[in-house]
Amino acid sequence: MALVSPTSELIDRYSKDSFGYCTIMDEPGPGTTSSRYGAQSNISDDDLLHITHAGSSSESSVPGDPTDSSGGIGNASFNDDIPGLGQYDDFHTIDWQRDIARDRTRHRYIVKKKEESWWDLLKGAHDAWSGWVCVLIVGVLSGVMAGVIDIGATWLTDLKFGLCPSAFYLNMEQCCWSSNETVRDISGNCSLWVTWPEMLGVGRDGAAGYIFRYLFYVGWAMLFALLAASLVRMFAPYACGSGIPEIKTILSGFIIRGYLGKWTLLIKAVGIMLSVASGLSLGKEGPMVHMACCIGNIISYLFPKYGKNEAKKREILSAASAAGVSVAFGAPIGGVLFSLEEVSYYFPLKTLWRSFFCALVAAFVLQSINPFGNEHSVLFYVEYNKPWLFVELVPFLMLGVIGGIIGALFIKANIYWCRFRKTSKLGQYPVLEVLAVTLFTALLAFPNKYTRMNTSELIYLLFTQCGVTNEHDICDYIDRDFTNVNHEVPIAKAGDGVYTALWQLILALIFKMVITIFTFGLKIPAGLFIPSLAMGAIVGRIVGIGMEQLVYYYHDSLPWFFEGKCSQDESCITPGLYAMVGAAAVLGGVTRMTVSLVVIMFELTGGVRYIVPLMAAAMASKWVGDALGKMGIYDAHIDLNGYPFLDCKDEFGHTTLAADVMQPQRNEALDVITQDSTTLRELKEVMKNSDHNGFPVVVSKESQYLVGFVLRRDLQLAIENAQQRLDGLPSDTLCVFTHHVPMIGSGPTPLKLRKIVDLAPITITDQTPMETVVDMFRKLGLRQTLVTHSGKLLGIITKKDVLRHIKQMEEEDETGPIIFN
Amino acid sequence: MALVSPTSELIDRYSKDSFGYCTIMDEPGPGTTSSRYGAQSNISDDDLLHITHAGSSSESSVPGDPTDSSGGIGNASFNDDIPGLGQYDDFHTIDWQRDIARDRTRHRYIVKKKEESWWDLLKGAHDAWSGWVCVLIVGVLSGVMAGVIDIGATWLTDLKFGLCPSAFYLNMEQCCWSSNETVRDISGNCSLWVTWPEMLGVGRDGAAGYIFRYLFYVGWAMLFALLAASLVRMFAPYACGSGIPEIKTILSGFIIRGYLGKWTLLIKAVGIMLSVASGLSLGKEGPMVHMACCIGNIISYLFPKYGKNEAKKREILSAASAAGVSVAFGAPIGGVLFSLEEVSYYFPLKTLWRSFFCALVAAFVLQSINPFGNEHSVLFYVEYNKPWLFVELVPFLMLGVIGGIIGALFIKANIYWCRFRKTSKLGQYPVLEVLAVTLFTALLAFPNKYTRMNTSELIYLLFTQCGVTNEHDICDYIDRDFTNVNHEVPIAKAGDGVYTALWQLILALIFKMVITIFTFGLKIPAGLFIPSLAMGAIVGRIVGIGMEQLVYYYHDSLPWFFEGKCSQDESCITPGLYAMVGAAAVLGGVTRMTVSLVVIMFELTGGVRYIVPLMAAAMASKWVGDALGKMGIYDAHIDLNGYPFLDCKDEFGHTTLAADVMQPQRNEALDVITQDSTTLRELKEVMKNSDHNGFPVVVSKESQYLVGFVLRRDLQLAIENAQQRLDGLPSDTLCVFTHHVPMIGSGPTPLKLRKIVDLAPITITDQTPMETVVDMFRKLGLRQTLVTHSGKLLGIITKKDVLRHIKQMEEEDETGPIIFN
Repeated sequence: MALVSPTSELIDRYSKDSFGYCTIMDEPGPGTTSSRYGAQSNISDDDLLHITHAGSSSESSVPGDPTDSSGGIGNASFNDDIPGLGQYDDFHTIDWQRDIARDRTRHRYIVKKKEESWWDLLKGAHDAWSGWVCVLIVGVLSGVMAGVIDIGATWLTDLKFGLCPSAFYLNMEQCCWSSNETVRDISGNCSLWVTWPEMLGVGRDGAAGYIFRYLFYVGWAMLFALLAASLVRMFAPYACGSGIPEIKTILSGFIIRGYLGKWTLLIKAVGIMLSVASGLSLGKEGPMVHMACCIGNIISYLFPKYGKNEAKKREILSAASAAGVSVAFGAPIGGVLFSLEEVSYYFPLKTLWRSFFCALVAAFVLQSINPFGNEHSVLFYVEYNKPWLFVELVPFLMLGVIGGIIGALFIKANIYWCRFRKTSKLGQYPVLEVLAVTLFTALLAFPNKYTRMNTSELIYLLFTQCGVTNEHDICDYIDRDFTNVNHEVPIAKAGDGVYTALWQLILALIFKMVITIFTFGLKIPAGLFIPSLAMGAIVGRIVGIGMEQLVYYYHDSLPWFFEGKCSQDESCITPGLYAMVGAAAVLGGVTRMTVSLVVIMFELTGGVRYIVPLMAAAMASKWVGDALGKMGIYDAHIDLNGYPFLDCKDEFGHTTLAADVMQPQRNEALDVITQDSTTLRELKEVMKNSDHNGFPVVVSKESQYLVGFVLRRDLQLAIENAQQRLDGLPSDTLCVFTHHVPMIGSGPTPLKLRKIVDLAPITITDQTPMETVVDMFRKLGLRQTLVTHSGKLLGIITKKDVLRHIKQMEEEDETGPIIFN
Repeated sequence: MALVSPTSELIDRYSKDSFGYCTIMDEPGPGTTSSRYGAQSNISDDDLLHITHAGSSSESSVPGDPTDSSGGIGNASFNDDIPGLGQYDDFHTIDWQRDIARDRTRHRYIVKKKEESWWDLLKGAHDAWSGWVCVLIVGVLSGVMAGVIDIGATWLTDLKFGLCPSAFYLNMEQCCWSSNETVRDISGNCSLWVTWPEMLGVGRDGAAGYIFRYLFYVGWAMLFALLAASLVRMFAPYACGSGIPEIKTILSGFIIRGYLGKWTLLIKAVGIMLSVASGLSLGKEGPMVHMACCIGNIISYLFPKYGKNEAKKREILSAASAAGVSVAFGAPIGGVLFSLEEVSYYFPLKTLWRSFFCALVAAFVLQSINPFGNEHSVLFYVEYNKPWLFVELVPFLMLGVIGGIIGALFIKANIYWCRFRKTSKLGQYPVLEVLAVTLFTALLAFPNKYTRMNTSELIYLLFTQCGVTNEHDICDYIDRDFTNVNHEVPIAKAGDGVYTALWQLILALIFKMVITIFTFGLKIPAGLFIPSLAMGAIVGRIVGIGMEQLVYYYHDSLPWFFEGKCSQDESCITPGLYAMVGAAAVLGGVTRMTVSLVVIMFELTGGVRYIVPLMAAAMASKWVGDALGKMGIYDAHIDLNGYPFLDCKDEFGHTTLAADVMQPQRNEALDVITQDSTTLRELKEVMKNSDHNGFPVVVSKESQYLVGFVLRRDLQLAIENAQQRLDGLPSDTLCVFTHHVPMIGSGPTPLKLRKIVDLAPITITDQTPMETVVDMFRKLGLRQTLVTHSGKLLGIITKKDVLRHIKQMEEEDETGPIIFN
């Protein structure tokens, strides 16, 4: 029987994780960084205690009364030594209502004080602005962070191929800029850029050169991967993966200390540069969201309003995650919608504005840094000049279906592999695993030029239209002349280069699909956006080229089919657009994003015109994906790791009642405290015998009418405080939770504990349908609710009980609906 | 004392409105269109009743038991004759929790039935798809509606100036297209288009021509206005105004029958064309949102899932309002964000996807209709080719401040005038008022060419860059040559034309500012977006031209100031961008939109580049506006009309407790029903003596422990049903609300009413802070909550009590903080 037990099961599952997360506490964490803002926080905590009895007209507890233990909690000198009342333990669920109430109390206090002095007025103004200032700083730092990582990752990636001897700190593109050379080979090389074989005196072409390049490629990849994995292993285990499942969990109101700390940020930043450079099938976009959230968390400590209040801090984290996507793709609006749709839990309108501001600032800063060297802040900036035809909706929808299937298969396979890693011995050798996957990836990736190049370069190549500057194989059409810019691009027959490219792309697709399953989940920083986009872009480009050739061969026989637009020699199919639609489809299938996905893609092209194809593909992909497997990759990983995440999207559709879920069930006794007849000994016994986080207070053992709810933590603090003041506190001291202290002839003076009781706990009746209960937990952000029947206390339902029940009902559904048989 | 009283005060205030809204019920309204889907709904209602006691193991009521009155409610034949249980009266608040629960029950029923037959499987599939199908239809119809209105309004507007004799149904622009004439005069006239003086044999130029044109302009304007006002007056009084305040109220869970009906739609569509054509200072964008919501409401009746469930219907309405903005501006993403930020109340993620889909479909349909005759679906499509300079943020922020001031002043003046209209005799002559304002507008607008032209044309003119095709005065620069397209536009000195234009623009601004105050609130369809945008665009363009000239004169002396970008002859200031920023600022000041505003503006230009200036101006405008007056124009009108709108944005920051707000206060008795000791006579008396919507059920008069809550409506239905079955129902019959029926020796058989009791009412304790209570009302969409103390019932808080309390606290705040004195 567990009332408000710590989420021990979760911790168990968590610590079972082969990486041993729980053994490492690299960060002081939100709960213990208290000394600096202790005084500030005390005021609010004290006020909070006052609020619960503001309705009563008189106040009996005299300051300094040694028996009034709870009064002492508000004492600053007392509180400085211990963690504040509003803090939570690691792996605990936060109580949104309570935190928001604490913030309002603090706010009221500041407003009230504002009229007293200039200094307080200034403090009030600082408080009012701090939210905006905080997101401003977060935005600026996120932009800088993204710029540094972009530059660093590009440099390291190019290091696999060669070096710029004249200025070693330049990457290949920058190196070749300074050379003023106009002639470069297909991968953009120029004479100033020295490849590794050249350094060893071997020509860059020829068999020896190829072998040397191959060897260096594999060698550097292994070195980078080793470095990344070791850094993560040694300094910040939380820095691995994309971080988005954990951020979703944290934003839904869970505490994971150190997950958003400075060490995680630092190691993740270095690690992501290394792992991207190692050529593994991963992206830096997801980790950028995590890093932006780290920045948000760190900066929030500069503002006690946010740093000391877990619920308020999540507002900053929502904004930070928007900034993360904003800098990852150069899509501020898409970032805000990503935060709203995918990541955030509690998203009031104020947060919407701040997120938008934060995302914009971040994008603006990144644009000023200009890491890509073009004037667009967008990762893949493309412009199409052809409208799409209505008939093209058919292949677009088809791409959506393919994307959904690929996404669902990928999720299933990846989860299967991750579960295998968790349960088998494989999980004990994370660094070796990383090295093995890297070796495999590097060996197979080098021969195929589409897998050898940087994945974002590949996506960009597949997105772009064939034009004057594009000399790749996929633009090798027969009789097509690009030299005249003003000339219409004629529809043309594919040349040999295109067919070669098609084969290479198909091989690249298979390779990416297989290797990404093994890559996502490795203990290095690794995002999933870029690999998904790449897979989709390959599929899309292949379909696009197919469509183009179809139109080339049949456009005269079926003119009505193409609305008469392809009847001239002009090309009317843009294979690049197909690549983009395919990319959206696969990413949609993997993550199950819809609106934010379309908006991000829309921001990449900047044309309202292509929203409909993107939307069609995203929708088809989501529907097909949902039909094949309910959860997106992030939700699947949340489920795999057993995080206590109460999803807002799913509707709870079962007919169970609160009475079926509450603890205790049948015949078991409920641990309660009576309002004026519990002795200190009984109290200590109750606390010792159970590990619940709180206890309901009732009128008496006989008539269990609910009075209030008291937290274990507060109770402990109050008793410790009282024992400090009165050394010989007899164990038969009566602990009184009422306003009125009963008169006792003999015995010690009763201990007044009324102030620590929450007199307004959320209650429901035992007949409340669970769907309403789930709704209340979601919308009010409850930690627990008390179950009554005609006013009498029957039991308690915690968030964990709710989650367990949902899981149980889902499993019942899967094993077959018992009710209907 | 009012427990769950009908919102009589609101009805009072509403019917006090001089237009006599309440006397006209032009639509059957959502509450009474019941016959068609009665059977469907019965199932769910019956199921709902079952759900409340699903926890109890045995079921005592035998079907057909004449004393079990409540059992009969589920009977289809019974329920067909009376309005369903889930319906609400006019001007009542809906109970979100109950409606959502009803929908889930219905859903479960369908899922369960699905396995029985093919037909049921089909019905299940239809049910699953109906949401998407519904928003698809709404989107298509919204697009068509917008296309028709755009075309109609343009034609009527041009009718003021002349006619196309060769094809009377063409507007001026279309008429001139067919003429193949290349030379047109400044306002786009051509020889095929015959102006009114020409029809009368007078030349279009010259004094006589001017006077005739003037007369016809005024005459047509008066005719259009008279028609619009009369139509609204006679057929659909709800069609007046923009409709957005009412839609906000409806979406927050209020019933206004007929507000979204087919008559309102029809009259509003015709009326808006007429009122736009009359040249009044108003726009069709707000009304388009209203009309799209009408379409949403009407279409939702095709799908019982939505038509019969007020909470679910609001999901469709949210999507419809997104479609409305989408077609009004050609901005689908902006529309979704507008729906999210400004209009909607309950916006789950599913609604986000559907809204996006709906908005996209609507935009796509409108684009296919192509009413503007260009390939863009956007109202003001502009493209700038210059980046903005960092230093320009100063004038942009200044524009934001000006926009905030204009917005706040406008709101104050408009509300003052509307209040005057409500309280004075003026309100009794709505048509005369419309005619007077129209006469005034037409007389003053004609002489100034910037006010004479269509307001959206004016905005477009101000937004655009000066280029080859722009021959207006505002582009009259000395020594600037546009003939060479490839040539850089040189920075140039303003010519006389620009100075003339400046004066005319200033006059136009003053005129618009004054006349719009009197126009918004007239009893004709009238939106506020376009006038606000126009005011802002004028201010912005003036500032832009000023900046441009400043740079022209000083760019050599302050090169560092302009980042060296204006040092060449090239122009580096785009006055059109200033116009756009100014427009965003004033619209932001008036409506207090932020994100959606920026996104709408961004979609107009399609360039991520200009988001930062727009954002800066929108933020500055909102902050300045909020400092000068808390409410945006829509909220101010909601307040003025006394709608029961519980704003999600405001935080309730007072320390009152539930005990201070609940009814009854002090010494008054609470109307309760005991669970097993109330006779029929007592029950009827309680119902007669109070007008509450529901009554709490308690254990007994002596121990008022709460058992449940019963709705007046259900009680009435149950008693009527019982009386129908048992003619001579004695008035001393015991009404039993418990599962267990007490054994009575003598007297009539007790009437079992257990099934109609809601055994899971939401309760709070008397010590709950009001901020928590307000939060619960907002987030859970409550209609009322019961207040208890240690399980005993103390009172009740309704949504109306909460609203009254918030209002009261706000007034206290304004009269000075009493607490702090």
